[in-house]
Amino acid sequence: MPRKIILDCDPGHDDAVAMLLAQAHPAIELLAVTTVAGNQSLPKVTHNALGVATLLGVTAPIAAGAEGPLVRSADYAADIHGDSGLDGVVLPAASVALDPRNAVDLIVELVMSHEPGEITLVPTGPLTNIALAIAREPGIVGRVREVVLMGGAAHTGNLTPVAEFNIAFDPEAADAVFSAGWPVVMAGLDVTHQALALPAVAERIAAVGGSKSVFMVDLIAEYGRRYSDVQGFDAPPVHDPVAVAIVIDEELGGGHVDLVRAPIAVETGGRHTTGMTVVDLRPWVAAGSDTPTSVALGLDAAWFWDLVVDAVAASPAP
Amino acid sequence: MPRKIILDCDPGHDDAVAMLLAQAHPAIELLAVTTVAGNQSLPKVTHNALGVATLLGVTAPIAAGAEGPLVRSADYAADIHGDSGLDGVVLPAASVALDPRNAVDLIVELVMSHEPGEITLVPTGPLTNIALAIAREPGIVGRVREVVLMGGAAHTGNLTPVAEFNIAFDPEAADAVFSAGWPVVMAGLDVTHQALALPAVAERIAAVGGSKSVFMVDLIAEYGRRYSDVQGFDAPPVHDPVAVAIVIDEELGGGHVDLVRAPIAVETGGRHTTGMTVVDLRPWVAAGSDTPTSVALGLDAAWFWDLVVDAVAASPAP
Amino acid sequence: MPRKIILDCDPGHDDAVAMLLAQAHPAIELLAVTTVAGNQSLPKVTHNALGVATLLGVTAPIAAGAEGPLVRSADYAADIHGDSGLDGVVLPAASVALDPRNAVDLIVELVMSHEPGEITLVPTGPLTNIALAIAREPGIVGRVREVVLMGGAAHTGNLTPVAEFNIAFDPEAADAVFSAGWPVVMAGLDVTHQALALPAVAERIAAVGGSKSVFMVDLIAEYGRRYSDVQGFDAPPVHDPVAVAIVIDEELGGGHVDLVRAPIAVETGGRHTTGMTVVDLRPWVAAGSDTPTSVALGLDAAWFWDLVVDAVAASPAP
Amino acid sequence: MPRKIILDCDPGHDDAVAMLLAQAHPAIELLAVTTVAGNQSLPKVTHNALGVATLLGVTAPIAAGAEGPLVRSADYAADIHGDSGLDGVVLPAASVALDPRNAVDLIVELVMSHEPGEITLVPTGPLTNIALAIAREPGIVGRVREVVLMGGAAHTGNLTPVAEFNIAFDPEAADAVFSAGWPVVMAGLDVTHQALALPAVAERIAAVGGSKSVFMVDLIAEYGRRYSDVQGFDAPPVHDPVAVAIVIDEELGGGHVDLVRAPIAVETGGRHTTGMTVVDLRPWVAAGSDTPTSVALGLDAAWFWDLVVDAVAASPAP
Repeated sequence: MPRKIILDCDPGHDDAVAMLLAQAHPAIELLAVTTVAGNQSLPKVTHNALGVATLLGVTAPIAAGAEGPLVRSADYAADIHGDSGLDGVVLPAASVALDPRNAVDLIVELVMSHEPGEITLVPTGPLTNIALAIAREPGIVGRVREVVLMGGAAHTGNLTPVAEFNIAFDPEAADAVFSAGWPVVMAGLDVTHQALALPAVAERIAAVGGSKSVFMVDLIAEYGRRYSDVQGFDAPPVHDPVAVAIVIDEELGGGHVDLVRAPIAVETGGRHTTGMTVVDLRPWVAAGSDTPTSVALGLDAAWFWDLVVDAVAASPAP
Repeated sequence: MPRKIILDCDPGHDDAVAMLLAQAHPAIELLAVTTVAGNQSLPKVTHNALGVATLLGVTAPIAAGAEGPLVRSADYAADIHGDSGLDGVVLPAASVALDPRNAVDLIVELVMSHEPGEITLVPTGPLTNIALAIAREPGIVGRVREVVLMGGAAHTGNLTPVAEFNIAFDPEAADAVFSAGWPVVMAGLDVTHQALALPAVAERIAAVGGSKSVFMVDLIAEYGRRYSDVQGFDAPPVHDPVAVAIVIDEELGGGHVDLVRAPIAVETGGRHTTGMTVVDLRPWVAAGSDTPTSVALGLDAAWFWDLVVDAVAASPAP
Repeated sequence: MPRKIILDCDPGHDDAVAMLLAQAHPAIELLAVTTVAGNQSLPKVTHNALGVATLLGVTAPIAAGAEGPLVRSADYAADIHGDSGLDGVVLPAASVALDPRNAVDLIVELVMSHEPGEITLVPTGPLTNIALAIAREPGIVGRVREVVLMGGAAHTGNLTPVAEFNIAFDPEAADAVFSAGWPVVMAGLDVTHQALALPAVAERIAAVGGSKSVFMVDLIAEYGRRYSDVQGFDAPPVHDPVAVAIVIDEELGGGHVDLVRAPIAVETGGRHTTGMTVVDLRPWVAAGSDTPTSVALGLDAAWFWDLVVDAVAASPAP
Repeated sequence: MPRKIILDCDPGHDDAVAMLLAQAHPAIELLAVTTVAGNQSLPKVTHNALGVATLLGVTAPIAAGAEGPLVRSADYAADIHGDSGLDGVVLPAASVALDPRNAVDLIVELVMSHEPGEITLVPTGPLTNIALAIAREPGIVGRVREVVLMGGAAHTGNLTPVAEFNIAFDPEAADAVFSAGWPVVMAGLDVTHQALALPAVAERIAAVGGSKSVFMVDLIAEYGRRYSDVQGFDAPPVHDPVAVAIVIDEELGGGHVDLVRAPIAVETGGRHTTGMTVVDLRPWVAAGSDTPTSVALGLDAAWFWDLVVDAVAASPAP
């Protein structure tokens, strides 16, 4: 029985790859895609989600959520994702309709109507929707199986020396999510910077052929150009699908991701550290089995890219 | 035409008086009562709201909202309001049913379905529901006429030296509300400590007779005992109806409340000041007419208590 | 026996008046004048101190101390005091030599060589020198009689909505001084804004005649122009001599200043409140006799100006 | 010509090893040893410094400085260093007298009386003395060659998840030192956790024989027991001599320590991060040659231990 997930995202190039993987892999059942402002404004990322869903044949409902952070003002990642949030690719006209429900309601509704432990939340954008869902219905905390999120960094950040974009975009939401008491697995920059789309990967994807292949090749090319320009990467880190891959790895018995149980706090009040995920990796602070938070530190990148290439090849778009 | 308001509250002794005034005064049309965790837990304050509504004959919908702060953990005001949130009074069994909608949805729905500028929000508890309503539908910011809230302090606080309970309970929500850009009138401790229920007031209320009178007399007696014990007041400050009275004053042409336009920020990051409303009262920082925030500094207390006594006498409970 | 004080200052117009009062009043024995960067740079305020001392016939040693805040960078008050720190007056060429000792050493040396309880520190600038003196010799904390300082605000600030210049210039030093455990009397804006140099005051000072009179008349005129321009005051608040006046009042039996014992903390970490003196004025938080900090809230302004006028008249400059 | 250094320390087991190395290595000329509260109180660490100096034959002046942090209260490292600050070893009765000057004065005096660029400061304790020296004489900033300090962590901390003891003991002092503008080389936990006193090291030291050997063997044994108990290390990290070794490496032409130029800020205001050294290691934030701060990330441990063993063997104690 595949793992039921809700993918909460802000497409975004790497979010699109996360959608691809979540849609295609048999270990995952994609219950819904929800959108949140982050890489770009809510209308733009929602537009992108619908276009990508059309391309991929996603049939799960797609619902839009928060237009900005809980408290702070929005500061999008246009440098990395462009004005559209998904520059450089050609999206089909959306044949998928936006679900009329608010993303937050849809998350709450799905979690509360499934059995405890059935649903995994996979946020790959700012955590605003998830924090709002807790605020809307605190009962979800005890019913969600786990939250496997892309965000944060145990060591070096990207938006600031120590803060990663998704967390720094809405630190208060992140604080609420990390401290809620449910299991959280953090796939931060420590592991997503291991998911580099090297030329060989792009070649394998190109070799698959078809509309998804073309889309992915264009996406990686543009994303790579931007990461090269802005952060000097030779090959771009494809962050978001790593969170999906962690769920897949768990379902398949593990072994491809190194997870370390550790307390994680979110700094909301520092002069130099706001938006930092403070991961306690001191070896002598042994995190007991009751520490609900874990951080991913290692990734079998070859295995990860096999997943992605297989997903491109798997179910041809309709 | 009376002013349409939504009363967002956490009854709470003084919230009950705010309900009384909002229900009884002809200058006010009470569209809804929404509840939020604050003085006590959400179930308790909602129970109290229903009981008070039954006593007062409130027919507007009553809906429950947030169970706790956006980010922080809840710390109720049991010392002032007791274990029930409304200790010391006898509430009738509720004959009013709870509206099935979430308070946040109800607020959004009412604001968006009325004309811009029609609805005034009157929060008398923590600002969690209001912040969540902005998050749910940022469009409300441009449609609400104003937010007239009880909370904060320009000078001395109560929960801490400089922070008032409602703001300190959920500083991040308050930050979002004060910085949203809509008109906010802050009725903080500066003015609500002028609304003291002196013995003469209690006598006048007792003289009215009837169930509302009995309820109010009991309420003031208990509330006074607790304020005497905890904060050493000779007579208790009845905070929350002051916000309602400000709306009434505006409708009737003004003159009973001193409002000063001033920038107001909420401190969320201080070591000694978290939850403070930082009101810029420097005379030379002239707040222009585009400063959307105002602070109430003076109250015609005799006029205020006339309003309350009249409200007790006005419409006999069913 | 007069009270022995060390005046630690950053002249500055009102510091000069503090020097005048400290030098002239028989209840005060001025042991030393020490300078600190604040209103202007250390060389400038030291130059001014020497010139004013020459004019006044100060024979106590004058020593220079800290060139800037403990941690932060310096931001002088040139708008109020001008480029020289004492614009608009004519200073005599200094016939007083600068003491070769560092101000911090001089403070420590004097305190440690007098009996416990003999010396009162009167800082009227940023508290950098005093914090450094504690760091240099913690033993001074138990030997100083009290610290009577100009700085802070219980209510409205000047540099920011809630922070006063002297404290905000070096909040970490202020934190160290207020939390040291010795008696501190804070003469903040609450009381110094009552010390307004109204035209009648200037006329009385002018009527005295002589070099000190001319100096003071020029000083008040320039200071008044600047306070009018920058902060819109009709008459300028002459802050610093209020601290000296408090010592005089204590020596003479009191009655001219309202002091309230209250806990005082300095905020160093807020987003909107850095540099604020957080005074706990909640009436029910009864400050016991072991609370070492007090705040001045009221001043007998007529008495205060009599002191100043008498000081102008008192001991003619040599 | 050897490098002239001032060793500012709080002995402390590893400080004693730093003294050994600084005293013995021909590339170093030890101008002074100054002490500061940190691992233990100032009297204790000063007592230890004198005893160790006696054992080692140090003839440079030894002066005591700050008794505690600039602003915060002291919290010693008794768990690691014991009640004496140097538990487990036998110190000779001190035949070296304490210099009567304050450490801060001695530092200023030495720096100002040498040529610009001649003196290197090597702090291995909290940075209180160094911050006080800057406050005393800002002119030292332009005259010191560089500050090579033990403290901080680019990644994992020890006192807290992200803060190292020396910095967290006095974050404000560290902020002042790191932001002063002079060259700072940070030898933090990233590199000092590579300086583990493995059993083979202890054996080599034991094989040397003599009083220094016995002292060092005892020291490492006790220090190892404590690090094992408190932080679970198999072999203890001998932090402080790494800073001395970096100076030696520079003098000898380099190659044994990996230094990376990077902006470094000290967090003083966070909820979870106070005392953190925020090192900007983002590869695309290329630190130019005008960035005055560097962080040590790699150490040739074999070379380092050779230095220490040679120092034990080198100059027999008198």
